[in-house]
Formats: sequence, structure tokens, C-alpha cells
Amino acid sequence: MNPRISVKDVEDIAIGGAVLGTGGGGDPYIGKLMAQRAIEQYGEPEMIALSDVPDDEFIMLAAGIGAPTVIIEKIFRGDEAVTVFEALEKYMGQKAYAIMSAEVGGLNGVIPIAVAARLGIPVVDADCMGRAFPEVQLVIPTLYGVSATPMIIADEKGNSAILNTISNEWTESIARAISSKMGGMALSALFTMDGKTAKRATLDGMMTYCMKIGRTLREARQHKGEVLDELLKVTGGVHLFKGKIVDLERRTDRGHVRGIVTIQGSDNFRGQTASIDFQNENLIARAGGEILATVPDLITIVDQDTSYPVTTEGLKYGLRVNVIGIPCHKEWRTPAGIALAGPHHFGYDVPFRPIQTMEQPA
Amino acid sequence: MNPRISVKDVEDIAIGGAVLGTGGGGDPYIGKLMAQRAIEQYGEPEMIALSDVPDDEFIMLAAGIGAPTVIIEKIFRGDEAVTVFEALEKYMGQKAYAIMSAEVGGLNGVIPIAVAARLGIPVVDADCMGRAFPEVQLVIPTLYGVSATPMIIADEKGNSAILNTISNEWTESIARAISSKMGGMALSALFTMDGKTAKRATLDGMMTYCMKIGRTLREARQHKGEVLDELLKVTGGVHLFKGKIVDLERRTDRGHVRGIVTIQGSDNFRGQTASIDFQNENLIARAGGEILATVPDLITIVDQDTSYPVTTEGLKYGLRVNVIGIPCHKEWRTPAGIALAGPHHFGYDVPFRPIQTMEQPA
Repeated sequence: MNPRISVKDVEDIAIGGAVLGTGGGGDPYIGKLMAQRAIEQYGEPEMIALSDVPDDEFIMLAAGIGAPTVIIEKIFRGDEAVTVFEALEKYMGQKAYAIMSAEVGGLNGVIPIAVAARLGIPVVDADCMGRAFPEVQLVIPTLYGVSATPMIIADEKGNSAILNTISNEWTESIARAISSKMGGMALSALFTMDGKTAKRATLDGMMTYCMKIGRTLREARQHKGEVLDELLKVTGGVHLFKGKIVDLERRTDRGHVRGIVTIQGSDNFRGQTASIDFQNENLIARAGGEILATVPDLITIVDQDTSYPVTTEGLKYGLRVNVIGIPCHKEWRTPAGIALAGPHHFGYDVPFRPIQTMEQPA
Repeated sequence: MNPRISVKDVEDIAIGGAVLGTGGGGDPYIGKLMAQRAIEQYGEPEMIALSDVPDDEFIMLAAGIGAPTVIIEKIFRGDEAVTVFEALEKYMGQKAYAIMSAEVGGLNGVIPIAVAARLGIPVVDADCMGRAFPEVQLVIPTLYGVSATPMIIADEKGNSAILNTISNEWTESIARAISSKMGGMALSALFTMDGKTAKRATLDGMMTYCMKIGRTLREARQHKGEVLDELLKVTGGVHLFKGKIVDLERRTDRGHVRGIVTIQGSDNFRGQTASIDFQNENLIARAGGEILATVPDLITIVDQDTSYPVTTEGLKYGLRVNVIGIPCHKEWRTPAGIALAGPHHFGYDVPFRPIQTMEQPA
């Protein structure tokens, strides 16, 4: 029998997802509430292994698209999700066997759970990034030539669009414009693919990995343990910086949250200043003229007291934080992966230099 | 037997449509070429009367959406139109009985002819405005509660979106954003409706009316007649102004061409200056502190030599023009029509005052 995702699991997945969400992927608190409400109303959805998806059945990804700052003001009711997914199934003339997460992240890691509970189908223990990224095409399936469309994008009011595009870059461009018009955040079902393709082009085990990170943080906190050390251990991450947020430029622009956060160093980092540029997700971290880390590696800001992740929209002046770097999945470190989602894609004229760590995560 | 639309008819319809297009609806030269090429390749499409559409068959409107300045750089090949229309038919699970024009206008008046020729179905002798307007919801069917969706919008590259919305204003907002991303101009099929609805909610005879205007201009020019007088007679219009364009502000902005053209008077209008504001179409004409005409009445700028209509994108410094006012269809002069598409909708705090003419057109 497959495991079922409980209300408690959702909390761990949301927090673990927010760690890997590198500032983006949405607020874990909102995500948690959405998924927990769906589970309470419709029951616990099954979680199935990627290998258990039959080759000829098809799966859909569920994701929110837009600026995560907006979701706080604009929570999906949830029932519209069913309408949206059923509309895409009807268009495709096929029922989805299961739902998958497009990206881990506080919200986008758990939206699939809410949708799966309502639709009564399983969630696949996988995602398409092993992190969060701000654009539709920045997923491993793009590296494998999988189209994001047919895709449906919908708002909570009842407006929807079914897209068919010639490339995932075009999907991003058009879907982003639609999500802006829909109020800055929209729900989407996309990257429909069969089981055979999913086994090749998605990242196995990502939901359980998120759950493990979330559980580690929760337990370390309960036992008053060395939470940061535990977090670095479970993620294979490194401690990049420690300090206080002393400046924050943040604007919602063309469907994204963009900006720079500046952190004044403390303890071992006293006298130094770090800055992190973000576009929904943290893109590049610098200190003292040096680059500490860049995409596609993960740059995560966590609260000094709890080591809980701080999302882009949760950044604020005076917050005391640690910055950690987590190596990205090895698929992102291929030349094609770096070309798709490395620093150049985001306009930075610097090479990708992998974070050096003691051990790489699985 | 129903009449067929010839290559020559297309020329008259394009020019007549551009007169009623009030600056918008696209360039008649481009429109003519597109439709003529389709007719040469696929044969002359039939034109059927609105009353000949069976009550339970459904029709689709065909229209370009975007800034008409763009179409000059970006001509549709034509074959993508078939893909687009067939995709909407497949989505609806029903074949279209005929194609209708959304709006008369140099391009949008003849796009349906090109599409009908390629699809091998008739064109209905009707449109939804009796003029051109810059927004999807500004049509007579909106006054009758007809939804613009399901609608498909597509570019020449192979990208498309099927929209379902809760109002025609939402359709406008989302479709406009998509057309901007698609390069400023996109092709759409929309306002699918059954024959019974079309008979109530669309304007009968508009294609033959355009043809008559175009033919009048062509013949008067050949016979070196009083072309302007003939034009005023056939349209029931009035002569509002005569002069030379001395200033032109024009920008392509949020998917529209917006601006103001200033005309220095000559002959009877010497010493006066007129200005016309436009958003794709001409919206309001003023001279000497007086309002000469406003939407929904038609304000058309024609070349002094030929009395051929000048579209918004064809305006240029130094051009000698006449400005004529043509009363809009009586459906637009109802309180609901004026509320939908009168001066207030476009941000002008002036009442609609109908153009006074000797005779109203049918």
C-alpha cells in the first residue's frame, strides 16, 4: 500500500520545499493551509513513486504562476482547481493518472497535494527542478524536449486559457502576461507527459526529500538542537553568510518580484556586507567583491533563531539571517542545464562556479 | 444561388470597410492582398444573408487583434488561419457553418473572406459593429449578452490560446496581453454563436454596405466625379473639417496605437484648428473648443484628392485631408450602446451628442 500524505506531512513538505525554494515557490504558511484544508475536506491523497506511474498513463503538473507577493492577498478557494484540471483533461481527452509538483517551494510544492486530494488521484514523489525557478521553461523536462503545453492557466474568478506553444520560452512569455492580467497570480496545469517520459525527465524522490528536510528542522527545533548544522547536513549545504538585513529593494514587476537584499555581516562575517539579487528566487549572492554562489545552485536565506526559510516576500529590514548554499541537482550542472538556467540566463556575466561541499546530496 | 465574393469585390469591401473603420480595423491594402491571395488559391467564397444562417448552426467571427501599425510588418501567411479555426471547431466539437466579420475595417472587414475561402465555408453579410472599435467587448453582441468566448487567439509562429472568460471585458484584457506578447498582432476566432442569436445580435447587410461604399468611391474617382459628395451621400455623413495635418502624436502602447492628430483648416475652415484623438480608431474630433463628433459615431479622415480613407497608421505630417462624420448604427445610440462605447468609456467627460444629418443610413 502506498503512503498517504497527512496534514502533518504537509507542514514538513511546505517547510522543506521552502528551503529548496530559495526564496521563491511561494509562502509555506499559505501553502500549508491550502493543502491541509483540502486534506481535511477530501481525505489524504496517496503518494506514489515515480516508478509506479505506468508508462502509458499521463500526469499533469500543478503550479501557481506569478508573483508570490500576490498570493498572500489572493488565496485560491481550491474548488476552482478542480474545474481547471478537469478542463485540461477534457481538452486532452484523457484522465490524469496523477499530479506532480512543477517545483518544490512553500506553495508550489504543496499545491499538487491540494489538487490531488480534491481530484482523488495520487501525488507523484518527484518534481521538475529540485528547487524553484521563476520561469516556466526552467525545468528539467525542457532539457529533455518535453513541451509545457497543452497547458491551462486560470484565475479564481472563472477566467481560463488553454495554451499551445512552439517552445517553453513562448509558454513562459504568454503565461506570464496572462497571470499579470489575472491579478498577478494564477493557477496552472502544465507539462502533461506520460509515465515513460516522466521517469526520464523529472527528479525522483523530491517530495520525500522535502518532507525529510522539514522534519529535520521541526525535530531539531523541538529538541533545541543545532538547527543550522542539522539543516546543512540534511541538504549537503554550506554556510555562506550570517548577518542582519540592512537594505531591501523589492518591486513586483512584469509578473515577478525582483530586487536586492543587503545583509551586514555578524560573528565570523563581521565587517563584510553581502548582497543577494532575486527574481522570485535568489539568483546570485556576493560578498566583498566575491561571488558566493549563483543559480542553478540554491541560495537560501533562513531565520537565525529557527533556521526556517525566509521567502522573498518575507524579507524585511532588521531580520537576522543565515545564508546557505545548497548544490543543485546534477542535471542542472550539465552544460545544457547551465545554459538554460545559469547566471547568463538571468543577465549576469559571470560563469557558474559550483558550490564546493563536503558531500553531494543524492 | 448565393453571390460569390470576387477579387474585385474584396477591393471595394476593403475600402468601404476602411471608411467605416474610422482609422482602425487595419490597412485596406494589406487586407485586400490577403483576401485576394486566398481567393486566387482557394476560390471565391459564397456570401450568405444573415437570414440564411440556420438557427441551430453556429458561426464564428474572425478578427485580427492588436495594434494595426504592426500588421504592416507582420502579414499572416494565411494557412495558420485554418489551423486556428479548426482548433476552435475541435474544441467546440462542432463545425462552423459560416464566418462573420467582427468589425468592418480595411483588414478586419476582409480577414473573414480570406478565412472563409480557405475553409470553404460562406461569409455572412453582417458584422458586429457597423464600424471598428479598439476593444473586444465593444460589439453589439455584448449588448445582447453574447460571450466572446470560447475564443482562440494565435500568432503566425504556431502559438495559440483558447480563452474562456466570465465577461467580454475580461476577454479584452487577457486577449490584449496575449496579442502584445505574440508580437503586437494576433489572429482570433471568437463570438461563436448560433444562427438564432446572430440574427438578433449582429448587424445585417454590412458586407454589402461596405461593398457599396467602396464601389461608389471607385466609380466616382474613375468618372472624376465629386468624390467627397458621393461618399457623404452613400454613408449619410457630414463634412466636419478640411485641412492639412500639422502635428501627429502616435505611439504603440499596451497593444493599441494611441495618439492625437492636429489639422490646420483650409478653405471654409481657414483659421481653425481641429484635433482628433484616437485609440486605433478615431474617438473624438474637436475644433475651436467645440466637439465636432464623438464615439460611437464614426469619425473618418479621408485624403483630399481621392476621398479614400486614411487609417491611423497612415496619418502623416503634411497630408491634406477631409474629416467626415457618419452616424453610427442605431443600436449604438441606445442608452446601453452609449454606456458601452460612448465617450465616457474612453475617458472623455463629455456627453454623446449625435451627429446631425439630413438622412440616416439604413
